[in-house]
Amino acid sequence: MTKNDVKELQALRQTKGRKERGIFAVEGNKLVEELMNSQFRVNNVFATEQWVEKNPVLAKRIADYEIITPKQMEQVSNFVTPPGIFATAMMPKYKIEPKDTENQLILLLDGINDPGNLGTIIRTADWFGIKNIVISEDTCDPWQPKVIQSTMGSILRTQIVETDVVKFLKEVKTPVFGALMQGKNVYHTQIKCNQGVIIIGSESHGIRDNVMPFVSYPINIPKAEGSQTESLNASVAAGIIISEVFRKNH
Amino acid sequence: MTKNDVKELQALRQTKGRKERGIFAVEGNKLVEELMNSQFRVNNVFATEQWVEKNPVLAKRIADYEIITPKQMEQVSNFVTPPGIFATAMMPKYKIEPKDTENQLILLLDGINDPGNLGTIIRTADWFGIKNIVISEDTCDPWQPKVIQSTMGSILRTQIVETDVVKFLKEVKTPVFGALMQGKNVYHTQIKCNQGVIIIGSESHGIRDNVMPFVSYPINIPKAEGSQTESLNASVAAGIIISEVFRKNH
Repeated sequence: MTKNDVKELQALRQTKGRKERGIFAVEGNKLVEELMNSQFRVNNVFATEQWVEKNPVLAKRIADYEIITPKQMEQVSNFVTPPGIFATAMMPKYKIEPKDTENQLILLLDGINDPGNLGTIIRTADWFGIKNIVISEDTCDPWQPKVIQSTMGSILRTQIVETDVVKFLKEVKTPVFGALMQGKNVYHTQIKCNQGVIIIGSESHGIRDNVMPFVSYPINIPKAEGSQTESLNASVAAGIIISEVFRKNH
Repeated sequence: MTKNDVKELQALRQTKGRKERGIFAVEGNKLVEELMNSQFRVNNVFATEQWVEKNPVLAKRIADYEIITPKQMEQVSNFVTPPGIFATAMMPKYKIEPKDTENQLILLLDGINDPGNLGTIIRTADWFGIKNIVISEDTCDPWQPKVIQSTMGSILRTQIVETDVVKFLKEVKTPVFGALMQGKNVYHTQIKCNQGVIIIGSESHGIRDNVMPFVSYPINIPKAEGSQTESLNASVAAGIIISEVFRKNH
């Protein structure tokens, strides 16, 4: 691995570097193995000798990896203690059209900006069978290492598309669910909702003013009487809403 | 503020330092204001001149604060960019007895070790009106800055008690709910559960072997057919379970 190769891999830490190259990176046994078993086009796999010694079975299964030094691994890794296995792959080019909401539920994230929350929401969507996720242009980059890590592999099993969400919602003809303060109690809404859009707003502002008019079914997670809590964590709120929708559909 | 004062405040960053002194710290407008309005015994409030200039109304309401220099604030703060207002208070001494589960639901956390998850779970409990939370001795320290921050103030409104959870559960005579792989579908369990214990297991191992025998109502969050996700994030799972219990009680 040349010095330039190291630089190229380090560039993948930044959104700009990833977008320019159309490449993302994953690390660790679980994620690299899932990547190898996925539909993704894998570019390179790098491992240290130490990793191969400790993981002979997985190393054999991966087969096509390049050995790099622990120092090089430290230079390219996103971890303080690198797991020892690092892979790069081509970013997917998915498309989600407004009419795709006619036979399934999709998730629309409006400005989620905490990587941990974004990853957790993707993981939850995958658990409940939501495969398509539309994110606004100011939602944090799903291909950044922190997000990938917190999806626990779900990033490889869902389709995430960044788009102009207002333009997207303008063409949606199916129900649009959104969590709003003045929404109806999510437990009592009896609508069967196996098609349409569920919007999750940002941590600080919720669903934004220009998105709000598209919400045809405002819902609300009620809080206990007397509770002084102002809000739920965004990924918990998303989890409860998706769970409720799933419960009603089954 | 003397150099020794700075050292004393810096000691509060570590669990040991907090436990020895019986003191914890909070930062930022929202948390400090909530602390002032709470039942907690506040020790000291420190602010920078700059903060007072920007927040005259809150400064007046707090009234009793000591001005420190920006440099001192940086030394004691847990933030890279300190909010400018820092307060210390006496740690509360709560008690939760097994018989307390006879007229309410309490939460029992068995080895949660991510500060963000712990804070988020406390926030969720508070939202749904659960006031008492028992944590195992290996659950992460709820008085560390990261946990306090992610509770968004709920740490001041709930009662958290660290205890030997096995000893505690041995004396509990009310239903004990726990999320287990082989549990019953949480959506279909029809039990009214306004008393007892809800156990949330750790991120990596779930509910541990020595705690498992106490679970009288094993429950499970079903996943979508075909989903390859192995698990939900601990705070999302906790959120869905608490929400389901709340829904059935109302």
